[in-house]
Amino acid sequence: MTEFDLIKKYFTDRQPPQSDISLGIGDDCALMSPRAGMQLAISTDMLIEGRHFFQGADARMLGHKSLAVNLSDLAAMGATPRAFTLALALPDIQPDWLRDFSQGMFDLADQHQCQLIGGDTTKGPLTISITVFGEIPIGQALRRGAAKEGDDIWASGTLGDARLALAGYLKQQHLSEEHQQQAAVRMHMPTPRIALGLALRGIAHAAIDVSDGLIGDLNHILESSDSGATLWCEALPVGPVLAQHNINLQREFALAGGDDYELCFTASSDQRPAVLAAAKQAGTEVTRIGFIEKKKGLPRLHLLDANNQPINLSLHSFDHFYEPGN
Amino acid sequence: MTEFDLIKKYFTDRQPPQSDISLGIGDDCALMSPRAGMQLAISTDMLIEGRHFFQGADARMLGHKSLAVNLSDLAAMGATPRAFTLALALPDIQPDWLRDFSQGMFDLADQHQCQLIGGDTTKGPLTISITVFGEIPIGQALRRGAAKEGDDIWASGTLGDARLALAGYLKQQHLSEEHQQQAAVRMHMPTPRIALGLALRGIAHAAIDVSDGLIGDLNHILESSDSGATLWCEALPVGPVLAQHNINLQREFALAGGDDYELCFTASSDQRPAVLAAAKQAGTEVTRIGFIEKKKGLPRLHLLDANNQPINLSLHSFDHFYEPGN
Repeated sequence: MTEFDLIKKYFTDRQPPQSDISLGIGDDCALMSPRAGMQLAISTDMLIEGRHFFQGADARMLGHKSLAVNLSDLAAMGATPRAFTLALALPDIQPDWLRDFSQGMFDLADQHQCQLIGGDTTKGPLTISITVFGEIPIGQALRRGAAKEGDDIWASGTLGDARLALAGYLKQQHLSEEHQQQAAVRMHMPTPRIALGLALRGIAHAAIDVSDGLIGDLNHILESSDSGATLWCEALPVGPVLAQHNINLQREFALAGGDDYELCFTASSDQRPAVLAAAKQAGTEVTRIGFIEKKKGLPRLHLLDANNQPINLSLHSFDHFYEPGN
Repeated sequence: MTEFDLIKKYFTDRQPPQSDISLGIGDDCALMSPRAGMQLAISTDMLIEGRHFFQGADARMLGHKSLAVNLSDLAAMGATPRAFTLALALPDIQPDWLRDFSQGMFDLADQHQCQLIGGDTTKGPLTISITVFGEIPIGQALRRGAAKEGDDIWASGTLGDARLALAGYLKQQHLSEEHQQQAAVRMHMPTPRIALGLALRGIAHAAIDVSDGLIGDLNHILESSDSGATLWCEALPVGPVLAQHNINLQREFALAGGDDYELCFTASSDQRPAVLAAAKQAGTEVTRIGFIEKKKGLPRLHLLDANNQPINLSLHSFDHFYEPGN
């Protein structure tokens, strides 16, 4: 089976037409126009075997996750998914793998009416690079630099279970089989918070998706907004599996675990009812975890325990070039 | 140096503002709007070390080529480059390599006012995945399926020297040092035919860029247009270095070499003066190499020698999963 047959069978033949995309896979370029009053939000992510997922990872879940982490960036801007491109390097052609991978990817894509509009397939170490396109009314994007002094800081869903699953796989933590399985769902099948991002348009100020860990990602908001912040560690929405482990692990993984794909966002305190209504509409829990304040030097972020005492945690945000021990 | 520092130093800090791109690197997504009456043309390509370029390839030339092969897809649609995203996997951080790679990439990007608007950097086998965005007036794209019976077939520039350089590196052909160097420029520093693509709007019918070899790429036009074609092998614009080798090698590499990044396009025969004027305006030579005809079965493409006798060449288009000898 040649590259062309392969692309055709699993990726090209299934494409439904969409009104604003006049040409999809099968030409030099796709052609696309945002609708009137809309602009495009564009994001790109690359996933590599052995770095972002284990060798031999389940193909269907990998297809889901590869697209989910990109959709999560759209969610963090308040954008509606429209389309994506896929560049795929494969060590060899395994039709079963391709069937499962494409199924996992398209199941999620179809949920969000997000169309594959172009791609490239080549031989190489298993690598998945996706660029995703969303639409957003001009001027309504939830930007990192829009946090204001006094804003509440909110997190969606729960944090830390994906990191706990990784710790279990790596034997850093002993998990029961049941806990491993429950936590692994969060690691392998993240839910991009698209509906919440849309519902927060016009309500939230700044937003980001939590991919590298809450502290690191919130710091991007603080840097872009030139602000400081305080977080109440007791308020963190710890994942249900992680919540059964000790408090220090809970804090570490909720604050700096990564792979959560929840939204962290800020909104004026007089918008609390609106935030809660948006969350209800989106079917996603949200938790108020702290507040934006004037920057008082570095670190920008301060952590308080249940007694409002400062916590000094030496935590690394997940950095793809950070090697433990180096 | 962390991932964030690295991105900032070589990629983020140099970005100039552009009017239609309201937010570039440094948020969850870039925001972009095509100008009034325009639609976006989008293409993606992935380049992998050891597959698309040699290990230890010159970083500056690699930066150039990585973007050039993507711009070539825009050229083939008649689109004006506007922006691109870059996903980059690196085995380690070598500041000199990054400086040179980004310089080669941005030198070409700046020539075409094409702005880097987003990216992802991670650790992994050296892999470069770019998605490029161009603008084109709605309805004016040069599409693969637009060839008409009786159209002339044209090729820009010259063909086969990039493949000859590869043959020299692989010791498939013995080349003098001078020939190797001359041919290597075509392999490492392809020129995307942007100006020609723009000049051909409204003149050409179908177009494609020759990346996988003329036969294979022309066949995409024929399939999309449900047509056949005849090529005059004597008319092929063979690269100046390849032209000094034997006629069979000339034909093989010009027809099925790959990595040329020239345009192959069709136009009505009454447009010959307009095609030549467009080529002159763009500063790119074009050569008439055959014609589109009614499909008479398979193969769709017929090759004639200098005496108008059919040539039967068993040639593979460059297929990224085709392994010689397998």
